[in-house]
Amino acid sequence: MEGRVVKGQIGVIGGAVCSPEIYEIAREVGGEIAKNGFSVVCGGLGGVMEAACRGAKEVGGITIGILPTSTKGDANPYVDLVIPTGLGHARNVLVVHASDALVAVDGEAGTLSEIAIALKVGKPIVGIHTWELEGRVPLAEGGRASVAMLMDILR
Amino acid sequence: MEGRVVKGQIGVIGGAVCSPEIYEIAREVGGEIAKNGFSVVCGGLGGVMEAACRGAKEVGGITIGILPTSTKGDANPYVDLVIPTGLGHARNVLVVHASDALVAVDGEAGTLSEIAIALKVGKPIVGIHTWELEGRVPLAEGGRASVAMLMDILR
Amino acid sequence: MEGRVVKGQIGVIGGAVCSPEIYEIAREVGGEIAKNGFSVVCGGLGGVMEAACRGAKEVGGITIGILPTSTKGDANPYVDLVIPTGLGHARNVLVVHASDALVAVDGEAGTLSEIAIALKVGKPIVGIHTWELEGRVPLAEGGRASVAMLMDILR
Amino acid sequence: MEGRVVKGQIGVIGGAVCSPEIYEIAREVGGEIAKNGFSVVCGGLGGVMEAACRGAKEVGGITIGILPTSTKGDANPYVDLVIPTGLGHARNVLVVHASDALVAVDGEAGTLSEIAIALKVGKPIVGIHTWELEGRVPLAEGGRASVAMLMDILR
Repeated sequence: MEGRVVKGQIGVIGGAVCSPEIYEIAREVGGEIAKNGFSVVCGGLGGVMEAACRGAKEVGGITIGILPTSTKGDANPYVDLVIPTGLGHARNVLVVHASDALVAVDGEAGTLSEIAIALKVGKPIVGIHTWELEGRVPLAEGGRASVAMLMDILR
Repeated sequence: MEGRVVKGQIGVIGGAVCSPEIYEIAREVGGEIAKNGFSVVCGGLGGVMEAACRGAKEVGGITIGILPTSTKGDANPYVDLVIPTGLGHARNVLVVHASDALVAVDGEAGTLSEIAIALKVGKPIVGIHTWELEGRVPLAEGGRASVAMLMDILR
Repeated sequence: MEGRVVKGQIGVIGGAVCSPEIYEIAREVGGEIAKNGFSVVCGGLGGVMEAACRGAKEVGGITIGILPTSTKGDANPYVDLVIPTGLGHARNVLVVHASDALVAVDGEAGTLSEIAIALKVGKPIVGIHTWELEGRVPLAEGGRASVAMLMDILR
Repeated sequence: MEGRVVKGQIGVIGGAVCSPEIYEIAREVGGEIAKNGFSVVCGGLGGVMEAACRGAKEVGGITIGILPTSTKGDANPYVDLVIPTGLGHARNVLVVHASDALVAVDGEAGTLSEIAIALKVGKPIVGIHTWELEGRVPLAEGGRASVAMLMDILR
C-alpha cells in the first residue's frame, strides 16, 4: 500500500483571463507548489488557473480543477483530476475548503469572493498584485516568495 | 387568482453579531424595504439579519431567511419563509442570487464574500458603514437613503 | 408586529413535464396545502411544480420556488418568492431541506433523487402515482388524501 | 510535461457502514478501477467508500474523496486528494458529476439519491447488491465484473 500521493493541497486563485505577465507569475506559483510536494487546487478554467496547473505539470506535480460547470471538458488541459460541480459561483467556496492555504494572483470580484471566504474560515493566504484589504492579505513579490511564505506558515 | 405577494426581493447582508447602533440601522433598512412592497432576503441568522427581518415584520412585510445549516430552527424569529440549505458558506451565493438588489450593513469577511459575488454577477448594491472597495460599493448615510438609492436603480 | 405568514412549508415534487391528469392532481395538492395554512415549496419550474403553485395561488396561498438556475425569470408565473440557486441538480436537496413534509406526484429520476434525500433525512413523504420503493413511500389516492395524511403526521 | 495522471474517474457509491462481505466487494471494485488506469471517486467516508479507496491504493491507484463536511480530516486514510465541500447531502450530486461512470455497492437512501442523479444526467452505472429500480440499474456479480462492464461501456 502506498502513502498519500501529495503532502497537501495549495489553492491558486485568480482571473480566468489575465495578462502574459500575470500568467508567468501564476505558472511559477504552480511550479513552486509542485516542487514542495503539494498538489495545485484551482477553479479549473483558463488564465491564472491554467497557468498554475501548467507550472505544476511541467515539474511533475498533480493538479485538481474544481469547475463551476458540470462539464468535465471545461477544464484546462493541465488539470489531472476534475471536479465538475455544476454549482456556479458557489464552487468558489469549495476551492477554499479544498486548500490548506492559498495564493491569490491578481483577480477581480470572483477572486475577492474567494479571498473573503479564506479570511472567514481562517485559511492562510498570500497575495501577488491583488486585493490587500487593509493589510489582511500579506503580499509577496513573486511566485517563489509567495509559496515560501505559505510553506513557513504550514510548517 | 392572486398576483405575486411582493414586487421583488431585496437582500440585506451583514454580521450575525452587531452593535446596537448597527442593529437599528438594519431594522430601518428592513422596514423601508417592506414599505416599498419588497420582501427582505437575508441569511436568516442574528445581528443585522435579524434586525432587517424585524424591521420588515413591524410594518407587515414578508421575510425570507436562507440559512447555512439544514435546521429550520436556526432562523431568527422574524423569518417568515425559511430555506435551510445545509450548504455552509456556499449559501452566501444564494442570498445574492435571490436578491434583485442588496444593502450591505457593516459586516466582516462573510459580508465581503457576498459583496464580491454581487459585484461579480452585477447586482446593484449599496453599503452602510461597510467595505467600499475603492468606490465599487456606493455608500448611503442610513437605512432610508440606502433603500431609496436601490429603488431608483430598480425603477 | 405580525406572526409568521404561514404555519409551515410543504414540498411538492414531480416532473417539469406531465400529463393533464397529473397536472390536475398536483393542482389539487397545492390548493389543499394552502387551505391548511402552509406554503408550497417546489423546484419552481413547470409541470407538477407549476400546477402545485397554481393550485395554492387560486386559494390565496404563498408559494416558494427553488430554481436550479440563477435566473429568477425561470420560475413559473405562480411562484411568489423565488430562490434562484445556480446549483443545478444540487438544488433538489434544498427543496427537501426547505420542506417540513413532502408530496411526490408522479416523476422520474429527478423526483426519485428528492424522495431518496427525504428518506435519508427523515422527512415525512407521501406519494401519488410515484416510486413506492418497497413500501418506503406510502401512497395516497389523490391530492386531498395526500395532504390529509401529512397533516396527521405533522400534528 | 506529463500527461494526465489518470485515464478517467470512476465513482464508487455505497454506505458509510457496511458488512465485511460488502467491504471486500468494494475493495475489489477499487482495485479493478485502479488496474484499469482510472482514479476512484467517492464520498470520502468509511464503509464502501473506504474499501474502494483502500483497494485502489493497494495497487498504486489514485483516490479522490468528496466529503459532505468542510473538514479534511474526515476523509478515510486511503483518500489521496480531499475535496471537503461543506455542502452536506448536496455533495452527493458532485460525486456523480465527478464520475465518468459509477459502481453502486449495496447502500440505502443516500446511495439511492446518487443512483437517481446518475440516471438523471445519463452517467453509466452498474450495481452490486443494490437498488435495481425496475431494471434501470444493471447488476453485476462482483467487483471485477462490474468494472469490466463499465470499461466496455466507456470504450
